[in-house]
Amino acid sequence: MAQVHGIAQDSLCIGSKHPLYSTVLKEDRTYRIALPNSYYNKKYSPASYPVLYLSDGEMAFDYYVSIVRFLSKGVYAHIPEMIVVGIDNTDRTRDLTPSKASKPSPDDSTKLLFTNSGGADHFLQFITTDLIPSIESSYRTNGFKVFAGHSFGGLFSSWVLLNHPDLFDAYLIHDPSLWWDNQLILKQTSQRLPKAHFKKTRVYLSQANNEDKGGFDEHFESIKRFNFLKDSMNNKSLTIQYRFYENEDHGTIPFPASFDGLKFIFDGFWCDFKKISSNKNLLMEHYKAFSRKTTHSFNPSEPMLDFIVKYFKKNNKKEEAEAVLKQYQQLYPKTAPTKL
Amino acid sequence: MAQVHGIAQDSLCIGSKHPLYSTVLKEDRTYRIALPNSYYNKKYSPASYPVLYLSDGEMAFDYYVSIVRFLSKGVYAHIPEMIVVGIDNTDRTRDLTPSKASKPSPDDSTKLLFTNSGGADHFLQFITTDLIPSIESSYRTNGFKVFAGHSFGGLFSSWVLLNHPDLFDAYLIHDPSLWWDNQLILKQTSQRLPKAHFKKTRVYLSQANNEDKGGFDEHFESIKRFNFLKDSMNNKSLTIQYRFYENEDHGTIPFPASFDGLKFIFDGFWCDFKKISSNKNLLMEHYKAFSRKTTHSFNPSEPMLDFIVKYFKKNNKKEEAEAVLKQYQQLYPKTAPTKL
Repeated sequence: MAQVHGIAQDSLCIGSKHPLYSTVLKEDRTYRIALPNSYYNKKYSPASYPVLYLSDGEMAFDYYVSIVRFLSKGVYAHIPEMIVVGIDNTDRTRDLTPSKASKPSPDDSTKLLFTNSGGADHFLQFITTDLIPSIESSYRTNGFKVFAGHSFGGLFSSWVLLNHPDLFDAYLIHDPSLWWDNQLILKQTSQRLPKAHFKKTRVYLSQANNEDKGGFDEHFESIKRFNFLKDSMNNKSLTIQYRFYENEDHGTIPFPASFDGLKFIFDGFWCDFKKISSNKNLLMEHYKAFSRKTTHSFNPSEPMLDFIVKYFKKNNKKEEAEAVLKQYQQLYPKTAPTKL
Repeated sequence: MAQVHGIAQDSLCIGSKHPLYSTVLKEDRTYRIALPNSYYNKKYSPASYPVLYLSDGEMAFDYYVSIVRFLSKGVYAHIPEMIVVGIDNTDRTRDLTPSKASKPSPDDSTKLLFTNSGGADHFLQFITTDLIPSIESSYRTNGFKVFAGHSFGGLFSSWVLLNHPDLFDAYLIHDPSLWWDNQLILKQTSQRLPKAHFKKTRVYLSQANNEDKGGFDEHFESIKRFNFLKDSMNNKSLTIQYRFYENEDHGTIPFPASFDGLKFIFDGFWCDFKKISSNKNLLMEHYKAFSRKTTHSFNPSEPMLDFIVKYFKKNNKKEEAEAVLKQYQQLYPKTAPTKL
């Protein structure tokens, strides 16, 4: 039998929780933050990272962190390393709904639900005035911002997209509650989407299969109609990818759809670096094309260049190793090795 | 501007790392463990949990924990709460390969890879003699055991399935390296699968689309053939669900396939508790059917019963609340409330 040393154990942590007093909402809020593995790696020059903001922090932060870390790991990463910021709820309905509207409870018609709704405008002000400046002054961010929301969080995200089209670069919108207030968002879509100026914004819109689980017909139909509307409007500065998830219900959808959605948002990031053998400028060309597509400047990360140089060196491909080392030295002059 | 209190921060941790000296391998090993949220909740009677064991702990533990927590959360959980145990590598190739075999490196044909292979038998002995007894004596486990592996970990899992058919109740096998040693596993499948006695074992077998990413033809074909073989053999004590992932490559597949695979393994666990209104015995009947299917005894968890009683009470459904409370008192007499 083996010995278990119960005392000598190390905790495995993925991030930290921080209080933040909101001057806008006049209340204490909490955000959760996870930094990329390379963030504090002294071997490398300090890098800046995109930020993924998400609602329902206390429920969703952990799995967003695991998805981002998984997809951004290693030399075959599908997305860049990112900072993940989860916003915990205090009054979820108030913050995530864009208008004041109430309705009877489906479980007990004598009860009125959502009486304290309509605070999305204030909540967004908190995000733009309190939260984003705090994050951007405390951490190294590169300006690329994603917002993710599910259910009421998806309603909020849709509302931000239509009413503040230049705020985020990309959105993950999962099975959003577009039935809200007689489908308010659909009216706004018709009015605002054709004229709105986005910055090559990418949206991943997921819809769950809730048929076995009690339906919610207006919920289902409103998302379908939103998807139809965006197609008919064809705003070239906005790309919305819609997917229906046959095997997911309203509760399970945000997990697989966030995985797929992040791959969609950063489509074109993945790079087959071994092809450097036939094109020495592959990396620079690849990242230039990706930067053009996202309207942000993305470079190969230092850990990636470090790995690739070592990989080619180990496999006796000196020419490739030297070509990549030269790019490494240009991008990170202070920390790049001086020779192979 | 908001104030950031950089000091007053709380770490967000998902588990812990433990050393374990292996008497079989004669070396120090490390395992990672995550306990369910309810594990230390003093409000409830101490419960026992299934255990998910996985290889490649240092790479895969974090996301398995996030998947298990997500799918087992709340009253609409798709899987039971589980203990997750990740086994970190020391010599990955040695431990996860079932035979001694080497082959030239595809990157540099002068190099021979896998010269230290063939240790699966010893590694499994470590798992059964050192690890499982440690876990089962240190934590409250209910006997239901799942093993998960990807790539070489999938090769190891397939080998365990065929050579020790009664060890685990279920497996997640992701894009396994069945090309190993002239497709040794396929020979073993033909020889052993028809006669093996499983205990209603469920296997989720996933296959990635590696065509754009350099192919590996023998890798692809061997998994296809394994899937074909298991169908032709039709061993009624074993159910293998196979799925090809068009949009995933060898690197990305274990994440979405573990999510889908755990839903498959625990298919039938999800319960539409609101239907208690038309059948007061719904919960007991549901869990009895699920227990029969898995050959293990599963009961509604105490947090779930607690939630359901409160839910019906809150919505003025006294009859339902009382029926569930009665079941709660029968199952957890020490901690159940004495009245509504």
